[in-house]
Amino acid sequence: MSETLLLADWVVPVSTPAIKEGALLIEGKTIKAVGRQSLFDGWCGKKESFGLLMPGLVNSHNHASMAAFRGLADDLPLMEWLYGEIFPREKRWGTAELVAAAFPGAMAEMIRSGTTCSADMYYHTTVSATLAARAGFRYAPGEGVIDFPSPSFETVEEGLVVSRQLVEKFADHPTVHPTVAAHAPYTCAPETLISVDALSQEYGVPFQLHIAETPDETQIIQDRYSTTPVRHLHNLGLLSPRLLGAHSVHLDEEETALYADAGVKVSHDPESNAKLGSGLAPVPQFLEAGITVGLSTDGPCSNNDLDLFGEMRTAALVHKLHGMDPTVLPAPQTLRMATWGSATALGIGDKVGSLEKGKEADIVALDLSKPHLTPLYDPVSHLVYSAGRGDVSDVWVAGKRLLQDNELVTMDEEASLLSLRQWGERLRDG
Amino acid sequence: MSETLLLADWVVPVSTPAIKEGALLIEGKTIKAVGRQSLFDGWCGKKESFGLLMPGLVNSHNHASMAAFRGLADDLPLMEWLYGEIFPREKRWGTAELVAAAFPGAMAEMIRSGTTCSADMYYHTTVSATLAARAGFRYAPGEGVIDFPSPSFETVEEGLVVSRQLVEKFADHPTVHPTVAAHAPYTCAPETLISVDALSQEYGVPFQLHIAETPDETQIIQDRYSTTPVRHLHNLGLLSPRLLGAHSVHLDEEETALYADAGVKVSHDPESNAKLGSGLAPVPQFLEAGITVGLSTDGPCSNNDLDLFGEMRTAALVHKLHGMDPTVLPAPQTLRMATWGSATALGIGDKVGSLEKGKEADIVALDLSKPHLTPLYDPVSHLVYSAGRGDVSDVWVAGKRLLQDNELVTMDEEASLLSLRQWGERLRDG
Repeated sequence: MSETLLLADWVVPVSTPAIKEGALLIEGKTIKAVGRQSLFDGWCGKKESFGLLMPGLVNSHNHASMAAFRGLADDLPLMEWLYGEIFPREKRWGTAELVAAAFPGAMAEMIRSGTTCSADMYYHTTVSATLAARAGFRYAPGEGVIDFPSPSFETVEEGLVVSRQLVEKFADHPTVHPTVAAHAPYTCAPETLISVDALSQEYGVPFQLHIAETPDETQIIQDRYSTTPVRHLHNLGLLSPRLLGAHSVHLDEEETALYADAGVKVSHDPESNAKLGSGLAPVPQFLEAGITVGLSTDGPCSNNDLDLFGEMRTAALVHKLHGMDPTVLPAPQTLRMATWGSATALGIGDKVGSLEKGKEADIVALDLSKPHLTPLYDPVSHLVYSAGRGDVSDVWVAGKRLLQDNELVTMDEEASLLSLRQWGERLRDG
Repeated sequence: MSETLLLADWVVPVSTPAIKEGALLIEGKTIKAVGRQSLFDGWCGKKESFGLLMPGLVNSHNHASMAAFRGLADDLPLMEWLYGEIFPREKRWGTAELVAAAFPGAMAEMIRSGTTCSADMYYHTTVSATLAARAGFRYAPGEGVIDFPSPSFETVEEGLVVSRQLVEKFADHPTVHPTVAAHAPYTCAPETLISVDALSQEYGVPFQLHIAETPDETQIIQDRYSTTPVRHLHNLGLLSPRLLGAHSVHLDEEETALYADAGVKVSHDPESNAKLGSGLAPVPQFLEAGITVGLSTDGPCSNNDLDLFGEMRTAALVHKLHGMDPTVLPAPQTLRMATWGSATALGIGDKVGSLEKGKEADIVALDLSKPHLTPLYDPVSHLVYSAGRGDVSDVWVAGKRLLQDNELVTMDEEASLLSLRQWGERLRDG
């Protein structure tokens, strides 16, 4: 396997301070060395130059194929949006064909915006996982088990079978990291949640679950079990280091301590939670308590994009606003959340999430020549407060180039977008 | 003057509903017609095709030349940031040469991100106005009068002279629309504010003023005048339709009514107000009361960019979050704020801010072929929730092309950014 030396005006490893005039040596899928360019004086092998190199962004909660419904209905009351617009269309149109048509467009968007890995909780995930594997995109899918008939299964038992098939099919895959998933404590009976958790334990994979997203959910759980969502899960013995609680908006101090004690991970979705009027997760308190927090967009129909650069900026801003304190969620902490935090939340923090010797080469290059990045005093500040998806020029996953000088090289973008547009025509009318 | 027909998959006039397969006829600096493409069947003059056409975004509050300090110091307590990092550098380095070096880079950023007009409150504004005029960028500058020596004048009297010179020099300019400006009620004595307002009245130009930005300001005004910033201005008789209150974060219901009764305009800066922990302006209440509200980035050293697409999205999200209600600030209202709202706030709403027959041709074209804009159900939703500066392909001001297929055609971008980078080296060390 040949080595390549990647040079950059700035290398931002995340795990260590930014390096001016930095370099990264990769061989096959692995990072062999990270340091100043002067360490590689006399290098006469293959080399390439970039503006800035950083670890790929990792999206720890997503419903990527909902790209098909992006912008179809906005600015509506939550229940009217979900039950009036989204669920009926998913019920009618949520086939494997829709996933096959929608996932590639979403994947193209993610790669172009510097995301090298995404979790996913949706249906027909074997279809999307196969497409991700083919394109070389790192992917952590989970089939969303729920107590009513879904687009891919009729009963919970069938959902568990589909989940098991997904996990077994991709158990040893180098870039697909399967998980199990259940929708939420208010749409899944205790037995359902317990069964999914048992699968998670059996295979040693993460358990993705929406938790405490909205005040409505809190009310439903209160009415049904006379407690809060997190205490309900605690009472069922389901809080564990395998549990990845998406949203986790409505937690009090005691519930935060329950998460911390059990090693539960959080996926933070500030834009979705804002757009749907759900609230703001107490992320500074989570981090203070030592909880692993990843950053995520949620699905592109409640956001409405899959851009983690925008999500970092929103996260850093809304927590400062909420605390009326500009020192909350500083840029380095925010960047860490979107890379190493998300990777750790998905159980792959030892493999990706930072640029370190021995880790896999999931890397993003940015063009620093833009006016909005000029001048540059601190590259980490720019990544969070000024940069955006449009600055991404090149992307690698496990050493393989997926985006080269703004061109997607492992997928047919034009065909993917055409097929998504054609589905849009069908979905428009309900 | 030759006519040109601009065709687009979507035309979003803002003043009227979006037009699928729309067209815009321009002649010289003027929009001659807007409608469906079918209205122009048989057209055999000059024509060009685009993805989407919309009115140029208008930034109603800015300190553009602070691009020189972009990202130099972040995540600090407000007073430490302002008095420890920014003011000392402005005092030492805030020369006409700095403005000449920094303004073009900021202008390049604005044009590239679809902004066709910006207000500005800074120093040496005759320098920046001359550069804006040369590049064909629409510009509403105001020299920031303040009670202590500024980078461009020693005394308030001198500041008033400089203000008067600016207004007179550009009184009849087609794309530079001068204003007067004072810094804030807590940095300007009543006599200063009264003098600047008198100039505003004399020339019939807007009066830009920071108002009620932070809790600290409220406290200072309380200590000094035993009232709130807005009541203080009301007591001085300064609330008028010429007054443009930047920020206007800390207003109660009675103060909102004072604004509405007097016809005061507001410039809303949600990203700056979040990043500095200042708070959230009650914009839904302002709009409900009939107050004209424009959208703005504030300076690029408290944001840290000049991107009004990002600002629209942030505005729409933070108000939904604050109200825990997804119906607050819907996409059409947000887009209107960033175009026609801002133009009206700057006193040029009759001239620009929407695509209407007879208005000047300040137009932005977007490329709709991107994954994050696919599929497209509602172009206005996409403009607020999914699109970004990277989608802008072409920009016109008063019928003149400033950006053509992603290339700036009226300014030397490379030279501008080089000079800004060189200043960055000097400013870094204080």
